[in-house]
Formats: sequence, C-alpha cells, structure tokens
Amino acid sequence: MSQKPWKGRFKGDITELLERFSESVSFDQRLYSQDIKGSIAHARMLGEKGIIPREDSEKIIEGLRQIEEKVETKGHDWDSSLEDIHMNIEALLTKETGTSGEMLHTARSRNDQVATDLKLYIRETVEALRGHLLEMMESIFQKAELSSEVIMPGYTHLQRAQPVLLAHHLLAYFEMFRRDVRRFEEVTAGLDYSPLGSGAIAGTSLPIDRKMTAKDLGFSSITANSMDAVSDRDFAAEFLFACALCQTHLSRLAEEIILWASSEFGFIKLPDSLCTGSSMMPQKKNPDAAELVRGKTGRVLGNLLSLLVTLKGLPMTYNRDLQEDKEPVFDSADTLSASIEIMSSVIAGAKFDTDRMAQVAGEDFTTATDLAEYLVSKGLPFRQAHEITGRIVLHCLDTGCDFSGLAFDQMRSFSDLIEEDIFEAISVQNSVSAKDIPGGTAPGRVRKALEEARKFLDKSSAD
Amino acid sequence: MSQKPWKGRFKGDITELLERFSESVSFDQRLYSQDIKGSIAHARMLGEKGIIPREDSEKIIEGLRQIEEKVETKGHDWDSSLEDIHMNIEALLTKETGTSGEMLHTARSRNDQVATDLKLYIRETVEALRGHLLEMMESIFQKAELSSEVIMPGYTHLQRAQPVLLAHHLLAYFEMFRRDVRRFEEVTAGLDYSPLGSGAIAGTSLPIDRKMTAKDLGFSSITANSMDAVSDRDFAAEFLFACALCQTHLSRLAEEIILWASSEFGFIKLPDSLCTGSSMMPQKKNPDAAELVRGKTGRVLGNLLSLLVTLKGLPMTYNRDLQEDKEPVFDSADTLSASIEIMSSVIAGAKFDTDRMAQVAGEDFTTATDLAEYLVSKGLPFRQAHEITGRIVLHCLDTGCDFSGLAFDQMRSFSDLIEEDIFEAISVQNSVSAKDIPGGTAPGRVRKALEEARKFLDKSSAD
Amino acid sequence: MSQKPWKGRFKGDITELLERFSESVSFDQRLYSQDIKGSIAHARMLGEKGIIPREDSEKIIEGLRQIEEKVETKGHDWDSSLEDIHMNIEALLTKETGTSGEMLHTARSRNDQVATDLKLYIRETVEALRGHLLEMMESIFQKAELSSEVIMPGYTHLQRAQPVLLAHHLLAYFEMFRRDVRRFEEVTAGLDYSPLGSGAIAGTSLPIDRKMTAKDLGFSSITANSMDAVSDRDFAAEFLFACALCQTHLSRLAEEIILWASSEFGFIKLPDSLCTGSSMMPQKKNPDAAELVRGKTGRVLGNLLSLLVTLKGLPMTYNRDLQEDKEPVFDSADTLSASIEIMSSVIAGAKFDTDRMAQVAGEDFTTATDLAEYLVSKGLPFRQAHEITGRIVLHCLDTGCDFSGLAFDQMRSFSDLIEEDIFEAISVQNSVSAKDIPGGTAPGRVRKALEEARKFLDKSSAD
Amino acid sequence: MSQKPWKGRFKGDITELLERFSESVSFDQRLYSQDIKGSIAHARMLGEKGIIPREDSEKIIEGLRQIEEKVETKGHDWDSSLEDIHMNIEALLTKETGTSGEMLHTARSRNDQVATDLKLYIRETVEALRGHLLEMMESIFQKAELSSEVIMPGYTHLQRAQPVLLAHHLLAYFEMFRRDVRRFEEVTAGLDYSPLGSGAIAGTSLPIDRKMTAKDLGFSSITANSMDAVSDRDFAAEFLFACALCQTHLSRLAEEIILWASSEFGFIKLPDSLCTGSSMMPQKKNPDAAELVRGKTGRVLGNLLSLLVTLKGLPMTYNRDLQEDKEPVFDSADTLSASIEIMSSVIAGAKFDTDRMAQVAGEDFTTATDLAEYLVSKGLPFRQAHEITGRIVLHCLDTGCDFSGLAFDQMRSFSDLIEEDIFEAISVQNSVSAKDIPGGTAPGRVRKALEEARKFLDKSSAD
Repeated sequence: MSQKPWKGRFKGDITELLERFSESVSFDQRLYSQDIKGSIAHARMLGEKGIIPREDSEKIIEGLRQIEEKVETKGHDWDSSLEDIHMNIEALLTKETGTSGEMLHTARSRNDQVATDLKLYIRETVEALRGHLLEMMESIFQKAELSSEVIMPGYTHLQRAQPVLLAHHLLAYFEMFRRDVRRFEEVTAGLDYSPLGSGAIAGTSLPIDRKMTAKDLGFSSITANSMDAVSDRDFAAEFLFACALCQTHLSRLAEEIILWASSEFGFIKLPDSLCTGSSMMPQKKNPDAAELVRGKTGRVLGNLLSLLVTLKGLPMTYNRDLQEDKEPVFDSADTLSASIEIMSSVIAGAKFDTDRMAQVAGEDFTTATDLAEYLVSKGLPFRQAHEITGRIVLHCLDTGCDFSGLAFDQMRSFSDLIEEDIFEAISVQNSVSAKDIPGGTAPGRVRKALEEARKFLDKSSAD
Repeated sequence: MSQKPWKGRFKGDITELLERFSESVSFDQRLYSQDIKGSIAHARMLGEKGIIPREDSEKIIEGLRQIEEKVETKGHDWDSSLEDIHMNIEALLTKETGTSGEMLHTARSRNDQVATDLKLYIRETVEALRGHLLEMMESIFQKAELSSEVIMPGYTHLQRAQPVLLAHHLLAYFEMFRRDVRRFEEVTAGLDYSPLGSGAIAGTSLPIDRKMTAKDLGFSSITANSMDAVSDRDFAAEFLFACALCQTHLSRLAEEIILWASSEFGFIKLPDSLCTGSSMMPQKKNPDAAELVRGKTGRVLGNLLSLLVTLKGLPMTYNRDLQEDKEPVFDSADTLSASIEIMSSVIAGAKFDTDRMAQVAGEDFTTATDLAEYLVSKGLPFRQAHEITGRIVLHCLDTGCDFSGLAFDQMRSFSDLIEEDIFEAISVQNSVSAKDIPGGTAPGRVRKALEEARKFLDKSSAD
Repeated sequence: MSQKPWKGRFKGDITELLERFSESVSFDQRLYSQDIKGSIAHARMLGEKGIIPREDSEKIIEGLRQIEEKVETKGHDWDSSLEDIHMNIEALLTKETGTSGEMLHTARSRNDQVATDLKLYIRETVEALRGHLLEMMESIFQKAELSSEVIMPGYTHLQRAQPVLLAHHLLAYFEMFRRDVRRFEEVTAGLDYSPLGSGAIAGTSLPIDRKMTAKDLGFSSITANSMDAVSDRDFAAEFLFACALCQTHLSRLAEEIILWASSEFGFIKLPDSLCTGSSMMPQKKNPDAAELVRGKTGRVLGNLLSLLVTLKGLPMTYNRDLQEDKEPVFDSADTLSASIEIMSSVIAGAKFDTDRMAQVAGEDFTTATDLAEYLVSKGLPFRQAHEITGRIVLHCLDTGCDFSGLAFDQMRSFSDLIEEDIFEAISVQNSVSAKDIPGGTAPGRVRKALEEARKFLDKSSAD
Repeated sequence: MSQKPWKGRFKGDITELLERFSESVSFDQRLYSQDIKGSIAHARMLGEKGIIPREDSEKIIEGLRQIEEKVETKGHDWDSSLEDIHMNIEALLTKETGTSGEMLHTARSRNDQVATDLKLYIRETVEALRGHLLEMMESIFQKAELSSEVIMPGYTHLQRAQPVLLAHHLLAYFEMFRRDVRRFEEVTAGLDYSPLGSGAIAGTSLPIDRKMTAKDLGFSSITANSMDAVSDRDFAAEFLFACALCQTHLSRLAEEIILWASSEFGFIKLPDSLCTGSSMMPQKKNPDAAELVRGKTGRVLGNLLSLLVTLKGLPMTYNRDLQEDKEPVFDSADTLSASIEIMSSVIAGAKFDTDRMAQVAGEDFTTATDLAEYLVSKGLPFRQAHEITGRIVLHCLDTGCDFSGLAFDQMRSFSDLIEEDIFEAISVQNSVSAKDIPGGTAPGRVRKALEEARKFLDKSSAD
C-alpha cells in the first residue's frame, strides 16, 4: 500500500477493502495522455507566473513527457493503492524529479483536474467518432450513387407503401447520421470551457493564469464559476445522449439489414466474410454484425441513464459519486465507435438484389396513391379520390388481380374521370418520377440530393 | 362510430377494442392549434399553386379559423372514433364546408402532418420554457445580488470544504441553467426544417410548394428526404433530453433547499405559504415543493427513456409505434415547466439565515487550504505544505481546538516558514478575498460575475 | 381554497402555485374505493378497541359507504385544494357526520394510509391482469391446438433454422406468459403485509389493533417496522418490473405478428376489423395494434425507471418524492392491461396461411442439422459431421439446388456413412418427428405440452 | 485466426473487424467453470445413453477437468478468434483428446449451452450475494442491539418528526434487506429449469436424456419448450432487477450515512480507515465509500435497462443481440457485491454520537403528536386535537420557547382537557415508550424485533 497524498491528517491506513472499492485507476488510466497534457500546461503556467521556480517547472514538463512516452511504448502497471491516474502520475513524477514533482499539484485539485481531463478526452473522442461517422456516410453515399436507378418498395408499418428509389431510402439514413454529426459538434462546442484553475471548489489564493492554461489546452474560454466547474458533468451527459441517439439510428439500420437479409425479403446478400455460422446447424449464415449493433443499443441507453441517475439529487459541489462518470463515457465511446465501423463495412459489403426489389416494388397496389392523386388532378376532392381508389383495390383483392389486371372499362366504372392515360399514371416508373418535389423520390431530386451529400462529405472531411 | 377516412378498401368496421386502443385524440388534442396552423398553411399553398380551386382554399382557411376560435373559447368534445386530432378537425371542417373540406388532405399524409405539428408544438414549448427559466434565473440572480457579502461554507462530499460567498454558490446554479437555455436553443435550431410535403413516405405527385408552407409556418428550411422526414423523431428526443438534464439540475437545487431547510443545517427558512403540514403530526412544516421537484426527476428521465426505447430497432419509415412520441413530450414539458415555476417561487421566498452561515463558515478547518498555500507562497513544495497542514489539523483535532486555538509558537513548531501574518492569512474573510482569479469566489470576481449575469438576463429577455 | 387539515401551526394559506403543484387528487382519486375500504376497517377497529366511541365508528362506516356509493354512481368533483383523495374523503365525511368524521384520522397518518391504499390497488390490479393474461393464453392455446399439425420454419437470427410445429412456436409464448403469471403472483405475495397502524413514522400511542385491520383488509400479516412501512415502495417497484417484463414479452410477439403480416413473410392475415388504414394511401392495411403494443414498451420501461430514480438516495422515512409512486403504477397497469387485451384479440383473429408456412419450412436447408445428426448416429464425431454437412450445403448453393436436388451418389460422395435412408432422414416431416425429447417439437411432445397447458389454464382459472 | 467450428459452408474467413466486434470470450471467460460443469454433465449423459462411445465420454470428462484445473491455477490466454468461451474450451479439449473432443458438441448448440451456463452463474452469484447481504444485516443487527436504548429524532421530509429508537431506525433497513434476500431467493427459484437439450431451437433427433443432465447440474426441473428455452432471458432480467432494487436500498442507507457524517447532523463518526482525503484540502475527511455506493446506483439501474432494451422487439428465437445479456449481469453482480461488503464495513465501523442524537431528539416539537393523542385520549376528536396542538406549537414558535417552556396554565389555556400529567405524556422518553404496538418504536417492541431479526439471521445462515 502506497502513501496517500492526503495522509497528513489521517491516523493509519485505509482498509484494503475501501482501497479496492474506491480506486479508479483500473479504468481512468485511459485518461493518462489527457492528464499529462493538462499537467504540462499547468506546470508551464506555474513556472511562467513564478508560482513555482521556472527550473522546477521545466523539470516537471520534461518528466511528464518521459512518463508519457514510456507508458505509450511500454505500458505501465498502475498502482491501485495510489487511487487514480492523477496520483499515479504525480507519484511517478516525484520519484523521477523529487521536489519538483511535489510542486505539480500547486493551485490545483483533482476536482478541476479530472473535469479537465474528461473534457479533453471527450473532445478527442468526438473527433474520432465524427471521422468514423463520415466514413460510414461515405459507404452509404457510394451504395446510393451506384443504385440511383433502382426502384424498391418503400414501407410504412412494414407494409409496402409506395415505390421509391433505393438511393432515396439510403439517403434517409444519410440524413439521420448528418444530424448525429451536427449533434456531436454541439457537444464539442458545449465543453469548450476550461475548468482548470477552479481548484477544489473555490479557486486558489495563488496568482494563476487560467486563460493561459486554457489556451494551451485548446479551449476557447474558461468556466465562469469554480463551484459549478468542479461539479458539472453536463458535457458528459450530452456526449452520452448523442451516442444514445446515434446508436438508436444504427439499430434502425441494423433492423433493416436483418430484415433484408432474410430469405423472405431477399433484398441483400451479405458476403461470407461478414457473417458467422452456427455451432449446431451447418447451413446457417447469420447477419450477426447487424444483430449485435441492434442489441448494443441497450448498453448505450443504459450508459446515458447511468450518469443521469448518478447526478440526480447531488448537492453541491463535487461528490465522490461523480467518479462514476467515466466508465459509461468510455463504454459508449467504444461501443458506438465499433458499431459504426462494422456497419460501415456491412454496408460496403452488402450486395443488393435489385431485380428482386424491382419485382416487388409494384406489388400490393403501391401506386394506389398515384391513382388517387390522378383523380385529384382531374378535379375530384382528395377524400373522394381516396375512397374510390380504396374501392378499386378492394375489387382487385376480391377478384385476385392487381391494377394491371383490370380492363380500362372496369377501371372507369369506378369513376368517369378515369381516362386512357391511367395505366401510365400508375406505373411504378411513373410513380417514382412523379414525386418531383424537394425531398421527393423522383430521380432528378435524388440525383440532386446525392450531389448535396457529396458536397457535405467533401466539406466535412476537409474540416 | 364514425366513418374512417380510409374506409374504401375495408370491409366492415374495426372492433371497438381496437378503436379504443389505437385512438390518440384523447391526448393529441393538445396539438389542435398547431394542427390548424399547419392546415391553413397547406390549404393556402394548395390554392395558390392551383392544386385545388382558390375559393375552396379560402373556404378551408376560413373554416379552420372558425374551428380554432370555437375550440379555444368553448372547447370541443373530440370524437375518439375519428382516431386523432387531424381527422377530427378534417371531419369538423368537412361538416362545415362540404366538398372544400374533402380537399384539405390533398398532397398530404398524417405522417408529414403530425411531424409538422409536433415540431411546431415543441418550438412553442421551448419558447415558454425559456421564459420560465429566465424568470427563475432572475430569482437566483436577485438572491445572489442581495447576499453578495455573505460568507458560507462551501461543501464537497457534504463536508465543509472552503469558505465561499453565498452569491458564488447561487451563481453556480445560474451557470447550470444558462447551459439549459443554450441547450433548448439548440433543440429549436435542430427542428427548424419543415417536414410538410413529405407525404406518407415518398412525397406527392402533385405540384406543391414546400418552401411556401415552410415559410408560412416559420421554418427556415425544409427537410431533405421524405422518408427520413416522416420517421424522424430526433427533435423530440433532443427535447426530452434537454428536459431531463434541466430537471436533474433542479433536483440538485432541490436537494440543497431540503438540506438547508433542515434544523441541522438551518441555512434557510421557507415561508409558511411555500410549505405544507402533516395530517398526523401537528408541528410539521415540510419543504414539499423541493421534494416534489426532486422526485419528479424520475418521470422526466422515464420519458426520455420511453421515446428512445420506442425508436429502437424500428425499420423505415413510419410505424405506428411513433404515436407514442407525444405523451412523454407533453408530460416532460408540463413537469419541467411547473417545476421551474415552483422553484422560482421557492428561491424568491426563501430567507437565508446569514448569521448561521457565517458562523459555521470557518468551522472544521475550512481555511486549511489557505494555510497550505501560504506555505507554498513561502517556498515549500505543495505536497509538503499539504502534509504539514494536515498534521496541524490532526494536532488540533487531538487537542480539541481550531486554528485560532493555537498559539503562534505552536503553529510555528510545524514549520519555520510560518510567520506572524499566518492568522490573517487563514482568516475566513481573507480566504474568500484571496480567491481572486476568474471564476473564483473573491468578492470582486463575484461582483463581476453578477454583472455578467445581469447582462445575460437583459439580453436574453430582449431576444 | 379549503381549510387544510394541518392548518393549526401555519400562518396564512399556501400559495395557489404550490397548491396546484403539490395536489395529487387529480390522479390519486383512482384510489377512492381502496381508501374507503381502508378507512372503514380503521374506523371499525377504533370503535371496537374503544379508541373512539362505537357510535361514532358506526356513523363513520355508514358515512363512508354512502360516499362510495355516491362516487360510484354519480362521480364526484374532487377538490384539489384538499390536496389528495384522503383529505377529500375525510372532508366529505366530516361534512356529513360532523364530529364523528373528525375522529377518523385518529391513530393514523396519510403515510400509512397511502401505503395501504396502494397495496390494495396493486393487489386488485394484479388479479385483473392475471385474468387478462389467462385469457390471452387461452387464445394462444386455441390457435396452437388448431394448428398442431402445421409445420413452419423456426428462426434464429431471423434466418430459417429448423422446421418446427406452429403449435410449438405458439407454446413458446405460452411459457413466457406463464412466467409472467408466476411473477405477478409473487408481487401479490410480496405485498401481503398491512402497513396500517404505522402512523407517520413511529406508530401511535393509542391502543390500536393492527392485526384486526389487516385481517379485515385481507392481508395475511402486518409490516414489522413502522419506519420501513411508511417509506417502502418495493411492492410498487416489483409490480412495475413485472409489467415491464410482460410488456417486453408482448413486444416480441408483436414483432412477429408484424413480420408475419408482411407480404414478404405472408404467414398471417389479420381481419380488416383489426387493422387500420392510411389517410393518404388508399391500399394500406396496417397491423397497428401490434405496432402500438411494441411501441408502448417504451413507456412501461420508462415507468419502472421513473420509480427507481425517485427512490434513489432518499433518506428515511417518508419524503414527498414518494407521491410520484402512483402515476407510473396506474399507467403501467392501464397500458399492460389494454395491450394484453388487444393482443388476445389479434391472436384470436389472425388467420395463418399454413400452406405458405409448410411450403417454406424446408427451404434454405433447414434439415441440415438432421443430416449432421444422421452422420453422428452412424458413428461420425459431431464436429466432422457438421463440417461435411456444411460442405454439402455449400455444394448445393454453388450448383443452385437443394438437398433433394442431389442424387444419392452425389450425396454419398461427401461421406461413405451416407446410405439410402438419408433422404427420408432429412425430410421436413421426419425432422420434426425426430425431435422426440421433452421440450422438443415432435408432434407427440407438442401434444403433451398442449395437455399441460390446458391443465394449467383450467387450474389457474379455478383459483 | 483459428478455424471456426462452423466453417464448412463458408468461403474464406470472416473479416478481422467482425471477429473483433463479435467475439465474446473477453468477457464470457468468466463462465468457464460453469461451462465446463455443463459440458461434463452433457458428456456423461451422451456416454451413458450410448450416443457417443462411453470411453470418449470418459476422455472428455477427464480432459475438461484438467482444463478447469489448469485455468484455475495458471489462468489461460483465451483466443478471441475462437469467438467465445464455449468454442475455446472445445478447441482446448479437442487439442488434448482429438476425436473425443469433436464429439462433445453432439446434440447440443451454443444456444442451449449459454443459457445453461448463465443460469448456473446467476445461481452461484445469488448464493454469494445472499451471504454478503446476511453479513451486512448482521452488522446492522449488532449496531441495533448495542444501541437499543438510544433515542434519536425520526425524520420525514428531512424534518424532525417523532422520537424513535436508533435501533428501530436501523431495523427499518434490516426489513428492506430482508426483502432483498427473499427477492433473490425468488430469482433462484425462477431459473431452476435446465435448458440443456433444447439444441439450437427445436431439440435434437438424438436420444438424449435431459432430466439426467438437469439433475447432474442441480436443476429441479427442465424447461418445457425448446424455442422458449433458447431465447428466454427472464431470469437474467429478474436478477438485474433484484440487484437494482437492492442497490437503491443501499443508496438510501448511503445517503443517511453521508448526512449523519456531516458536521451539521453530527450523528456518526467514521474511522479514518474508512474515509479518504483531498488532494488539495488538507483538512478533508470524506465519506467516500457511502458516496460511491450511492453513485453506483446509476450503473445498476443502467444494467437493468440495458437488458430490457436489448430484449424489446426481438422475434423468436435466439438472436445475436442476446450476447449482450452477460456484461450487465457481471457488472451488477460485481457492483452490488462490493457495495454490500463496503457498507457492511462502514456500518460496523461507524461510531454513533448517541449524546448528540438524544439531545436533539426532543427539539422541534417532535412530541406534538403525543400531545394531540393525549387530547384524543381525553375524548377530543383527533382533527380538533391536531389543530389545538398546532396552535400551541405556533404559540411557542412566536414566543421562542419549546413545550417545556410553557407553564401548565399556559398549556391549559388551549384546552381544558389538558391536565397535570401532560408534561409526562409529551416527554421524549414517554413518547417512545408509548408507541407500544406491533411495528412501533417502544423499547419492548424493538427488543422483540431484535429477537426476530436474530432468529432470521440464524435460520438463514443455517440454510
């Protein structure tokens, strides 16, 4: 058991049970590089402001750099009796630099330090997630571009609704994920305030320069209130929410891949390299990747709730409960990142059976709405047009045919407004082309949407 | 049982059981004004684009206005066999205007209609919530301004930590709620895309003008993909998250009010008019308002979870599951709004016992950190200063005195660096004044923070 | 504003805002009959023990019975300024009986009263839910019995896995819901302790007889500790969990109904009377009931979370937060009850397309496991048998045939152990019959499972 | 990359990305002993029923035992390319025993295997948790027994309500945890059905004996339906719920310890060995253990929701989503187990300041209810007694005294029913003694409750 940095006022050691229960280095070691970055900025400022001698400041900075390099290259066996990553690194530094190391924690508390570390971590993680998201959107874009002529049935209520372009369907997901990109950008903007220098709760009596460290660490600004700064975890909650909504989007895409890969739908084939088999049933080839992505939605929602529950009812300011902020953040980051990556590869690898799609796009009277709108264009109030079309559908169902199975006269017997051009009007091809409004599925509109998507990807990648 | 608008293709009526189970008008009636607003914009556009005769368009608009006025003034007994608010209003309109009413649903589906209504509702609700938040922040600001000289103990781990200004403590909450204001603004920005014109899934074959209705309804832009537009509920999830985090903040403030109103803390007295009593115990006077606010965090988190679970794994596009989007939105809006209002009044009504606060601000060695920083300023490395101070505290605990109970020589026996100015340095007053850094609790800094807060409130109220 | 029953110690009225915020009678009025039942038992005991005069006791009982009858037949306009259902009923009683009514609350607090009421409510609700569950299980049973010869493809990963009997599939749900029945019975057993007589927190100094009221109210026993009794909501949490798991089960059944009702699966047809249509698309007929049941899982999980969050971190004993216990209970009870009822009717009304099921039951090599087990029965280690079968499947896929498309010699070329009886062994019919182990899908086993199910239903209905 | 056991039908390997994404051995390795136990039972049965040669069965059993011993003593570096613990162990076995090992998976699927493993794991975990719970209850019992004479203020709404015995307060927690013990026992009872032999979905065509393996593994019975058996995770959800409610109870106890350890309450002192300090503030000694226990409620609720969300909407039968069942179970088991252990030690180590408790037990008119009940015993209707007492309290508040500060005549001026014995009746000591009803706080009642508790502990430990 190592010496605790706060041992002065205590008699004897804490129990081993408590040491094990309360340590966090087993997980917050993931923050080592952020912690070192923060400490370097802090030490440099302490030196420049003359709070500690400049040469100690330099020794600290040099020492921290060496520690970081060593950890990166050789790893390190962190000591859980030193509680957390912060005290582990301070202990390593002090071992290396003696008195200089003992100066690092001047005008600082773990309370402002950990808030700083976690903000840095989330900022970096968001940047990485954004990259993964853009790659997946690139996969979606490319599939959409390749299939920009393919017609498929669009669904509501899992019932065939209207013919749409496959590209239009894929671009719907592009839009969802575009919102996720925007949401993650807001997370980054929301945490762009350095808490460093807030101390334990009230700041410090030493003449630190908070803006200097903030700038050094890439924050645009500093937090406005020291008590808020050490107890605020809004930025982590926002991150967890952005992850939860994004994983929920992925679960919807996953559900469709699972449906489409079923024999019943038969819309896509996944390559063997993206499926796994059964230990018992020799013929099985399962879309496990998509299932796991869908299933993992549970844990990502669970992580969001975990933090919100932890925060509920906590009085000011820092309470040890807040130590529970990190694991959900790590787990959601890892889960979402891996889920996006695998979905990107599933989309890229999927082969669409476009013949099958086209074949069923017109089944189940998917152009009935076009028939109703045809009647509207001839002057019939929509509600009447809807009902007449409904009756035509019912007639077909009773006689076991589809629209094309009706003779023109039969069709016309339902309404005098029906003319010879009706069969053209309710063809699948025309149904798609006619949706020629912004956001609609007409080929020209979809082409334009593809161009917009391309521009978004190019611009975002350049950022 | 009324005639369903989609009855054409059906044989016979739906069961009463299903009618009861699937109706939504019992709750979505709250959207009547948004629905009418949306329909007016839609009808005007249909008329202007010549999709329906202009005179029918005018009749529709006039009819809808009369319905709205009637509902507003006299209420209306909505018919659950007409399923939802949309069909109820269409039925009323058709009863009033005949054929014109039957034209309203031209080039529209309930799928794009309900998405539009809900966005309008959330936009209005956010505006109202923002107003309530600003009022509560005004209450906080005023208490802070009034108490800008009062010193109290700041807490970490519910243990006295360092003396702070009461105003500094209150402003920590101001910061929290300022982030809530920002978050709600992002919700509004995120939904600023009109879905109207997306139809059921694919758009429409009729020559509508989506931008015209969008502008009419105050949307800056239109959604980019019809399939996404009818199945997207991100904006509702974002709203529910913003509510959940805000209610969590309120739960922290509520917890403090409950603590402070206890006999043990004795920091505030609540007026009789803001407390309730016990049915059995005649002496009781309870801070029920704060307790209820804290307790209601459960339902607001539950509402967020509810929607995310509903969305999980839904294939494209609209599924009836999405009908479950509205009740959590209404409930969180109502709960948060009422919670903010009541907390505003609790804060305004609370009387701080500033004598009691001041009296305990210096107990429990709350200026120990100042002592350690004093030693640092004399050249001692912080870690050593911390340990020496700890030992002084331990000595005091063992001998049953506080810092002021030590003679100068006793104090100095712990370190030669200690000089005569030590007792001044670790006085409560000096401890507070010395935290003279941005975000710190020194009176000048807090005064500046108050000025900033004032500016924020003035600017925000003017927006 | 009415007089509060605790007004003695207060100066002036509470604000209207707090009155509105804190009232509960708008929802706890649902407990009126439980509240009256509890009060009658309490008053009777007070009279019999001589704590109040027997004639007052009788007047109270008579008065309460009249109030109940009046509320039941004519309803009542509850007064929210009287806070809750308890004080409303006491006020009505006192208006009716004068001094007698003022004696009702002797030796009682709302704290033990509301715990009693809620236990009574949940006990009754569980009884009703159990009845609904058994009815739905009866529907499932009958469908299973009718289809006990029908073969369908069983799925894992939404890929066809092995042929099973439709009855076997349906009975899997029977098992799920049987567990729900057991779980609800445990909820009832868990709450079978009367809290009445625990007072506000410590009991009472008056010589009440808790066992008398417990027996009167049908509780087997009394709670053991007054402080626990007034702050315990485990029974409500258990109820909400049982609801959550049951609704999750329903969501799985709902998902299958939605899948099966799709054109792609085509396994069931739902009657028009159990579907609804589209406001825009005239041909649509949607399985809304099942979608809503699936979607409502969100709210039932949300309700569970809501209560657990409310309870988190509450110190002893009663806190006003606990008022938030009732609405989630009511909502989950209503939602689950309605969901079970509608699913019962959906199952009863669904028509299975057994030809379609049988036709696809053997597609996609669903009897490959039988082939592997055939090889095992000839002495081959299973892992080798699995691999050889896998290779046969791959060969078929490459050549575009199924097992029956292979000549015997081709088949045998993969293993010498294969003999003439192979095609019989891997027939769909044999595959099903061969699963002749307890819990397996062989017709005899399923018949026995049906008999067990019948017995369970008969026994449970008789309880 | 190792050979997959299902490779026969596949062309080429799965991508490394998918391998990494879908492997579970990094966490399900925790099931190795349960997996081996299950495999031994399975292999023995296969041998005894002649499905595989008896000598292979023996080799398998021997091999598995050696693997278990090796893993236990030396650990093992599991191979993630072998997917999961099941395939890792089979691979190890086959390496050791050749053809015999290839026979182990006969008549079995990972689907029934993993359900069996997880049930065994939960059964063992519940047994261990039950032990920890009983130990903590022993700590509570001992503190209660030691303090059976100590009077403290009981709280509602965190306001002093009525005097109670400290032992009574502690026993309230005993009751809570007693319910947890019962709940965990129900979890065990609920999973007492062996799924082994259910195969992948339909059972097996080989003549296995499911009851033999069930008995061997300590299950009382077998599951009734193979399809349900492989997709049921109710038992895991029940376990997670029992954990969630128990952790919520711990959060309440933790909250009280935090409150009581504050300077303001001053009810307990925690030993240095159970507290930790601050990196910045030398005087701090924080109740971290209790804070962490409270904070961890978030993750345990999150785990429960995680699984329920994963299950929502899954069609039959096994879907890969279910792989997400294990990590929440492990995490809740670990968290709850550690939380109980640490709380047990905190309770055992806490020193109550019984003088302080006694001193404040009578403050704030905590015996006002006794005064009201005194009036009732003299014949006044309770509601009038309540009001009169309230007025006496108000009078005292206005004049700044407590009950004992009133002269008898002053007291009597509020009601003629007040006699000389009043001050005795409303003494703190009498207030406690007078609560002489079952579940009340009178010393004799509490002594009896202690006896009951002792019996429960003795009986439970003997089970």
